Amino acid sequence: MMKLHGYWRSSTSYRVRIALNLKGLEYEYVACNLLEAEHRGADYLALNRQGLVPTLELDDGTHLTQSLAIIEYLDECHPQPALLPPDPVDRARVRTVAHAVALEIHPVNNLRILKYLAGPLEHPPEAVGEWFRHWVGETFEPLEAELSNSSASAAFCHGDRPTLADICLVPQVANGARFNVDMTPYPSIRRIYDNCLALEAFAKASPQVQPDAP
Amino acid sequence: MMKLHGYWRSSTSYRVRIALNLKGLEYEYVACNLLEAEHRGADYLALNRQGLVPTLELDDGTHLTQSLAIIEYLDECHPQPALLPPDPVDRARVRTVAHAVALEIHPVNNLRILKYLAGPLEHPPEAVGEWFRHWVGETFEPLEAELSNSSASAAFCHGDRPTLADICLVPQVANGARFNVDMTPYPSIRRIYDNCLALEAFAKASPQVQPDAP
Repeated sequence: MMKLHGYWRSSTSYRVRIALNLKGLEYEYVACNLLEAEHRGADYLALNRQGLVPTLELDDGTHLTQSLAIIEYLDECHPQPALLPPDPVDRARVRTVAHAVALEIHPVNNLRILKYLAGPLEHPPEAVGEWFRHWVGETFEPLEAELSNSSASAAFCHGDRPTLADICLVPQVANGARFNVDMTPYPSIRRIYDNCLALEAFAKASPQVQPDAP
Repeated sequence: MMKLHGYWRSSTSYRVRIALNLKGLEYEYVACNLLEAEHRGADYLALNRQGLVPTLELDDGTHLTQSLAIIEYLDECHPQPALLPPDPVDRARVRTVAHAVALEIHPVNNLRILKYLAGPLEHPPEAVGEWFRHWVGETFEPLEAELSNSSASAAFCHGDRPTLADICLVPQVANGARFNVDMTPYPSIRRIYDNCLALEAFAKASPQVQPDAP
């Protein structure tokens, strides 16, 4: 059985859990405690040189890292249900929404960046919170316009089935709640979030129901 | 003919130029001057709601945004020469290297982040430079180990042909030179960079030879 090395509150681990659940793939969950720096220990670095979660360990012992690369792999090897639509322009749209979240928000707001702002750069918690909310707003504002105005969006970011775009969006919204992101200006994002969480694949992947959640 | 809206010194524009050149696809280059905030003007925002470069305008007027989504699109519609290898585990490896650069380094070191550090957070240029080099090192160190130790790496990040991984790596190395990143500890990255720049597709995509370079 595949093993997913992750952390309950990590957005990137959450993405891979959703994808595995949507595909109906069973996996063993192996918790890696970021607060105790287990991701910087020799055992974990042997699995993942970057020392980041998640890592997906395949049946043959191959280790895959980087959440989006893992999800594209899962979609290639287990094509149904598809996480990307068949048409290339539609696929580009789904990846664009996914990447807007995964490349413009998450990398600048993850734990190690916030620690660097609070540590070496000595910013107080309020400034760190403002940083977080600033970068969410920079992307959520145009994303909300796209999801509200494009006829390609429906119950989910693209059409009536969840895709890679929803897989990236949902953990980002959940993460934002921890930093008091005001979601009032984003009704389409909220609606899609609610539609996703109504699905078992998303609900079962939620941070608070993971074995390592406190 | 396709139109590429980009900026000479933008790493993400550079990535798409390399991909178009490797595929042998002709395109019209439309410069968007980031220093004069053209990417925040109404004309450009009509093309790209996020106000980021690059945007690829297809023959039928469709606009694609987000560099990696554009490159995956190009690889799907123009399969030869392939930018990803055929085997799913190999594809995951190439995407992992590409994403290590595109998700862990570039997003935290791009112009808008550095401006926020220098502006609202009032850090002097030395602290901004240290920030830049810190995040390059966090990823280049494990990446160098991967590229040196894995038998999958050869003349390029993956085998003897350039892939999506090299397309992301080369602009990052070029960008690092502007911030005095010491490349001594990364001989494999330097070797691959040199091998790429020896190819016309990479050389023609270089920032300094673009029409909008000073």
